[in-house]
Amino acid sequence: MEIIARISRMQARSQQLKREGKSIGFVPTMGALHEGHLSLMRRARAENDSLISSIFVNPTQFGPGEDYKTYPRNMDQDRKLAAGVGVDIIFAPSVTEMYPEGYATYIEVDGLTEGLCGRARPGHFRGVTTVVTKLFNIVRPDRAYFGQKDYQQAIVIKRMTADLHLGPEIIIMPIIREPDGLAMSSRNRYLSKEQRQAALVLSHSLKKAEEMLGRGERDGEIIKDQMAQLIQQEPLAETDYISVVDSDDLTESTEIKGQVLIALAVRIGRTRLIDNILWKDPNSTKI
Amino acid sequence: MEIIARISRMQARSQQLKREGKSIGFVPTMGALHEGHLSLMRRARAENDSLISSIFVNPTQFGPGEDYKTYPRNMDQDRKLAAGVGVDIIFAPSVTEMYPEGYATYIEVDGLTEGLCGRARPGHFRGVTTVVTKLFNIVRPDRAYFGQKDYQQAIVIKRMTADLHLGPEIIIMPIIREPDGLAMSSRNRYLSKEQRQAALVLSHSLKKAEEMLGRGERDGEIIKDQMAQLIQQEPLAETDYISVVDSDDLTESTEIKGQVLIALAVRIGRTRLIDNILWKDPNSTKI
Repeated sequence: MEIIARISRMQARSQQLKREGKSIGFVPTMGALHEGHLSLMRRARAENDSLISSIFVNPTQFGPGEDYKTYPRNMDQDRKLAAGVGVDIIFAPSVTEMYPEGYATYIEVDGLTEGLCGRARPGHFRGVTTVVTKLFNIVRPDRAYFGQKDYQQAIVIKRMTADLHLGPEIIIMPIIREPDGLAMSSRNRYLSKEQRQAALVLSHSLKKAEEMLGRGERDGEIIKDQMAQLIQQEPLAETDYISVVDSDDLTESTEIKGQVLIALAVRIGRTRLIDNILWKDPNSTKI
Repeated sequence: MEIIARISRMQARSQQLKREGKSIGFVPTMGALHEGHLSLMRRARAENDSLISSIFVNPTQFGPGEDYKTYPRNMDQDRKLAAGVGVDIIFAPSVTEMYPEGYATYIEVDGLTEGLCGRARPGHFRGVTTVVTKLFNIVRPDRAYFGQKDYQQAIVIKRMTADLHLGPEIIIMPIIREPDGLAMSSRNRYLSKEQRQAALVLSHSLKKAEEMLGRGERDGEIIKDQMAQLIQQEPLAETDYISVVDSDDLTESTEIKGQVLIALAVRIGRTRLIDNILWKDPNSTKI
């Protein structure tokens, strides 16, 4: 496995792979790899001739007071995990390599970035879309893989990739969970033992929503109320948002029909966790 | 000469050219071609195996109340002029092809877009950078050619192309002028005979600035005052801005050193015209 730090070198390697007629699968990450990332890499490994993953803790997607400085960094372990699932090249540039002096260009995706995490984290998606565009243009992948845990991010990137003709096919993969239901996240490492237990409110409240939908409840407000009540019972948890939105355009809908995203963000101490489920009305004709 | 309206077709043709190992020169335009455009095309023709030009009056770079609807469109004549200088492919998509329903993605270049035309035309550069990114990603040129008349546009695009790793080399070509000094512009067609005469204040005021600089004047404020006075003497002209800025970062500088851009925008009736010169201090050590 090769580790590349310079943009020019990564571009040259990708061009070489293209010339050899090899397809490129790409998994962009911020490192601190877990089973969620590895599931993307395994799928990418299976679908492409070569597999490139990036490890870059991107400063432009963190807001003031967020965890940019404390975000877990563990290159040695990441390297082993990536090699274990067959990554060919890790692209791990420095911050000054990606954002040199005078850097000035940012991507904005209107609409889709305004609700959910976009409301709580202004500027977050501008940082994500900017770095992903840069990475796509450096790596030139045929396919790029994202996790459903960051569902809003994934569909923002899908929209942007189509709008700007960036090239890769965007593949969204299911959430990988711990045995007790907690969605895997690099930020789970921040949690104390007690907080780790409290963090189960996220998946429990989604399970509750799923049960209510299964029983025929179609009023989003009632579902959100029940989820909020469940979370309020956990003293270590503080709800950031609970949303029921159309899974395509992320617009709020009181009456649930077609496919919806039920998503939430909850603070456990200083750690902000997110989780979601997609739910499709079995009677829906929407494809 | 081939004319292509569909993005997918243009992408396929560019990929084909790449596969054949042919270099692609690209001249994006809004049509209404004049000698300025043709000078870019001739240079691109000489430097590349294949020459693609786009004709697209881009709605996102026009503000409310600007001349999007009345902007001159003359495909028949443009086609003849382009064929005459050896254009291989004209890419002329429709507005809905470029901005389909649900379109949401825009590029922002901070700093460089704030002064000069950016102040008078909020959102203009966002439209320019967005469409140029799209066009670059569809056409995948090796080299792209822009005129110095839109100097701010050209260096914004240069910055964006580097920041986002878009690929093409950006080449900026000199302003082409009418025999009496008026910078060529598609918008000159809007001018009545009297207005056409009045429009000479732009190049005259730049000539005045050049003379003052040649005599050793280094105070930007004094130069701008003299230019403004000259323009005030023309009753049909109304100054939008006169700027003396560093030619790299477009920051205002009172004391002129190194290479500066002297740029102005003037309204002649309802027509807004721009012009500029680059001036380099002969004693400057700045490269």
